[in-house]
Amino acid sequence: MSMSFTNEKNGAVMFQFPGSKKVYVEGSRPDIRVPMREIMLSETKTEVKVEANSPVRVYDTSGPYTDPDVTVDIAKGLPPLRSKWIQERGDVEEYEGREMKPEDNGFKSNHDPRADRHIFPGLKRKPLRAKKGTNVTQLHYAKKGIVTPEMEFIAIRENMKPEFVRDEVASGRAIIPANINHPEAEPMIIGRNFHVKINANIGNSAVTSSIEEEVEKMTWATRWGADTIMDLSTGKNIHTTREWIIRNSPVPIGTVPIYQALEKVNGVAEDLTWEVYRDTLLEQAEQGVDYFTIHAGVLLRYVPLTANRVTGIVSRGGSIMAQWCLYHHKENFLYTHFEEICDIMKTYDIAFSLGDGLRPGSIADANDQAQFAELETLGELTKIAWKHDVQVMVEGPGHVPMHLIKENMDRQMEACQEAPFYTLGPLTTDIAPGYDHITSAIGAAMIGWYGTSMLCYVTPKEHLGLPNKDDVREGVITYKIAAHAADLAKGHPGAQLRDDALSKARFEFRWEDQFNLSLDPERAMEYHDETLPADAAKTAHFCSMCGPKFCSMRISHDIRKYAEKNNLNTQEAFEKGMQEKAAEFQRAGSSIYQ
Amino acid sequence: MSMSFTNEKNGAVMFQFPGSKKVYVEGSRPDIRVPMREIMLSETKTEVKVEANSPVRVYDTSGPYTDPDVTVDIAKGLPPLRSKWIQERGDVEEYEGREMKPEDNGFKSNHDPRADRHIFPGLKRKPLRAKKGTNVTQLHYAKKGIVTPEMEFIAIRENMKPEFVRDEVASGRAIIPANINHPEAEPMIIGRNFHVKINANIGNSAVTSSIEEEVEKMTWATRWGADTIMDLSTGKNIHTTREWIIRNSPVPIGTVPIYQALEKVNGVAEDLTWEVYRDTLLEQAEQGVDYFTIHAGVLLRYVPLTANRVTGIVSRGGSIMAQWCLYHHKENFLYTHFEEICDIMKTYDIAFSLGDGLRPGSIADANDQAQFAELETLGELTKIAWKHDVQVMVEGPGHVPMHLIKENMDRQMEACQEAPFYTLGPLTTDIAPGYDHITSAIGAAMIGWYGTSMLCYVTPKEHLGLPNKDDVREGVITYKIAAHAADLAKGHPGAQLRDDALSKARFEFRWEDQFNLSLDPERAMEYHDETLPADAAKTAHFCSMCGPKFCSMRISHDIRKYAEKNNLNTQEAFEKGMQEKAAEFQRAGSSIYQ
Repeated sequence: MSMSFTNEKNGAVMFQFPGSKKVYVEGSRPDIRVPMREIMLSETKTEVKVEANSPVRVYDTSGPYTDPDVTVDIAKGLPPLRSKWIQERGDVEEYEGREMKPEDNGFKSNHDPRADRHIFPGLKRKPLRAKKGTNVTQLHYAKKGIVTPEMEFIAIRENMKPEFVRDEVASGRAIIPANINHPEAEPMIIGRNFHVKINANIGNSAVTSSIEEEVEKMTWATRWGADTIMDLSTGKNIHTTREWIIRNSPVPIGTVPIYQALEKVNGVAEDLTWEVYRDTLLEQAEQGVDYFTIHAGVLLRYVPLTANRVTGIVSRGGSIMAQWCLYHHKENFLYTHFEEICDIMKTYDIAFSLGDGLRPGSIADANDQAQFAELETLGELTKIAWKHDVQVMVEGPGHVPMHLIKENMDRQMEACQEAPFYTLGPLTTDIAPGYDHITSAIGAAMIGWYGTSMLCYVTPKEHLGLPNKDDVREGVITYKIAAHAADLAKGHPGAQLRDDALSKARFEFRWEDQFNLSLDPERAMEYHDETLPADAAKTAHFCSMCGPKFCSMRISHDIRKYAEKNNLNTQEAFEKGMQEKAAEFQRAGSSIYQ
Repeated sequence: MSMSFTNEKNGAVMFQFPGSKKVYVEGSRPDIRVPMREIMLSETKTEVKVEANSPVRVYDTSGPYTDPDVTVDIAKGLPPLRSKWIQERGDVEEYEGREMKPEDNGFKSNHDPRADRHIFPGLKRKPLRAKKGTNVTQLHYAKKGIVTPEMEFIAIRENMKPEFVRDEVASGRAIIPANINHPEAEPMIIGRNFHVKINANIGNSAVTSSIEEEVEKMTWATRWGADTIMDLSTGKNIHTTREWIIRNSPVPIGTVPIYQALEKVNGVAEDLTWEVYRDTLLEQAEQGVDYFTIHAGVLLRYVPLTANRVTGIVSRGGSIMAQWCLYHHKENFLYTHFEEICDIMKTYDIAFSLGDGLRPGSIADANDQAQFAELETLGELTKIAWKHDVQVMVEGPGHVPMHLIKENMDRQMEACQEAPFYTLGPLTTDIAPGYDHITSAIGAAMIGWYGTSMLCYVTPKEHLGLPNKDDVREGVITYKIAAHAADLAKGHPGAQLRDDALSKARFEFRWEDQFNLSLDPERAMEYHDETLPADAAKTAHFCSMCGPKFCSMRISHDIRKYAEKNNLNTQEAFEKGMQEKAAEFQRAGSSIYQ
């Protein structure tokens, strides 16, 4: 397998964004280089003036793929930008690591004909771990008052002070998912006092999809703006697929380790053991997974609470654990071994994403006893993780009608003491399969406004099939909309700059600027060109909606021009001048709409 | 031009919905026949029982096009179902009506080569008007305590009592747009104590589109669920296009008469006169337009308030009136002639949709002084209309960030004394052209929950071009989602039935039922089949998301089966039984996941 990314046409679109350039903002040391996308704008030209418009810098998740000075060869992986920072702290050591086994990819032997031969060929670094007795989590550093390079990087990225970032991490209100074995990822933060983030799920299943497709989906998702990627693969070749994804991902990678553990016991949930699970955690920890979804809150006694639900248990991880608990009539081993899991997490700095295995799968089941009982347990587990200085976020629903959304946020804040909330949507109605990116974007925007830190995207294929590349794009853009709408509603500093710049461009008929400032410039341009394809239409002071004869936006230009020409800066002056100079306006006005 | 609709394959999809049949619920007299779509469901089959699932009846806006017993010929138009009700009230008279002029279609003579020759060929009825001294509005009847057949029809349609419908209309909280010259339309109601409605805009412009396309978009939009259609045509052949649309529309039609008036004065706003406008109102009244958007609230003194906005005035009607006011330095003639307009409205029972000509066109301009000043005037005009027993709804924004949405609803309720609110979105961010159906569905769902009665759809082409047929489908379905999410959040009786039925079908792997219950069955099926096309997959107890080996939904079935078999109906019994019968569950459970 070989894919290399340059800025040549790559399929349908250029990898780099039109009218934009990649810039890096340097921090206190030369190896802190924070990538941003700078969108160049053309001038504002009126009859009375020509004014430059400052370029707009936007948050950039796309990694080196959009840097024209870098050619990424996915067979080699991305440069390990954090390696030096990790090493210089002096608290990690290289070690031999776990030996890869055939069952890591779902086979009995390495000679199984179905085994994917595309083992990642790039430089195989030995894994790192915390030295005995040390703790390498960003939470641990933050609590000790240390501002790490990761925190400074994030401060620049979010336009905040480094000390503020440290404090948010120290308090548990934010996390920096950053496994020491994933030095390729650009540091990012998840917390409600920062930009709302979005996650994109990818991953093959037993039915469909190849490694190559999954790597492509990852690069594609981060190009459009995914802040983290979850690899939810469930079929064969899980280990190898993940290796390719991590080595090439500029964003943190999350997984649900129980999926792979289940493959190792041939899909028989009751055959799962703590040992198989623990081995899987180590395997993935050494590869560099940045956060693990762990369904440790699905307690034996909560399972009966789901018996009368309309849709029972819909979380895959939740149902695996419920099956195990019922079969053995024992407490969930993720719960009983939770402190041992914490020990692993802090050895690599992997963050918990405490899974909501009992989330509602339908409007009818929203905010029920099972869901909130589990949430209380997740709050209890948050405290245990914090005792170990392990970073934690908490997963949330699911399917929830609008009027019940806020209760989810409020209860989570209370039960989990402000640990970041990470929700799947929620979907605000069940009746639109094929459009669940939309049913859920409504809920996602709202819960983001109420305080959720990261929104897990939903694609148009939800409930129907696995997303392809186009679905990934649709899902990511839809969730960028929800996240940005939430940032605006929260009054996040600077969020509105982009809206204002785009609206100003729209008002001034700077079509190219309008496209380039949008979340999906290619789509905007394509839709515009469908009706008015001529290049001249890109500078036209009208559009296909009204046509050239009367444009609703132009009257405002005349009003403004009139005010400018006559120096009518205040409303009072305007009204007075308007009266006095009605005749002049008549002459000016009548010449315009011909 | 000739299009006839049967239930043969019509382009990509059947006109009728799969798994559904058209039913009519009869009222107190045989000519009150309320159409509904009945979705048939298959049986629930478990190891221990087979149970029928009741069919689900849903609100149906599609008109005779989905009735297999009717073949619609659009050259003849739909049957005039309300004619008898209108006539038997004894307060209307036929008259000769206004003679059609070449300028009604934008030409100087009938021999202009650009004139569309497709004059509507169907039976030309003479127009009706109220007899001198009478008032034929539904509001007038409601205030007199009369329950009209229209009200009874609506009561059945909405599952409410006729007297409740009458009372809501009498109080002004709801309107029934029902021009006596549009007897083809099936009565519907717009008010916050009923289902939230959606409007779809269609219409050609000077740049693009034909009559045939517009009629097709109308039938297409109502098939997917549009409750009303606005014809916003602005180019040539406006009169003829509208005639075809009205004669074939099963839902009320709205227009913005100033658009056509402007065409009659060759696009020069300052040449508009009350006489040209009045003539246009009469022309459209006789054709059967059910509601008029009238920008009577754009007062001369408000125009300067827009001078410093980021996007000025974005409403086409608003900017036309602003242009007129400034040029003449006179008050808006729609405001000064408002009572004369009321006289026309009550002669035909046309409802006001008081236009928000100063709505914000960007996040930056949301909830500003100009917007709320105009709203106060719309409140004043509402009272004047009510004095004449003319029905009124009030239009709202536009672009509004989430945290400012509720203020719009609260202020409108207060200023306009609970007259129905009809909003365009609102869009919750400006940065996603190409996806504004989504940026606005977020705002639309929220404002619908807060009390807005009708949501004007936004298509993916908003800001970029005119919607084609696919954009209409995408826009309508997106707004059905927003409206339904709002109904759920408001706790509208019965709204959740469809969600529950679909979720139950999903849980029981009744794939066909799941598709048929969804807002867009074709899309759902198409997406499902993309990954698992085999017919067998329609009955499979798994899907492509997890594959056949482990399905997260199945554990819940085992739990339920276990409870059923052992008669464990309460949670207590379940927990006790679970403990006692662990061994039995082990045997049952272990046989399932092979």
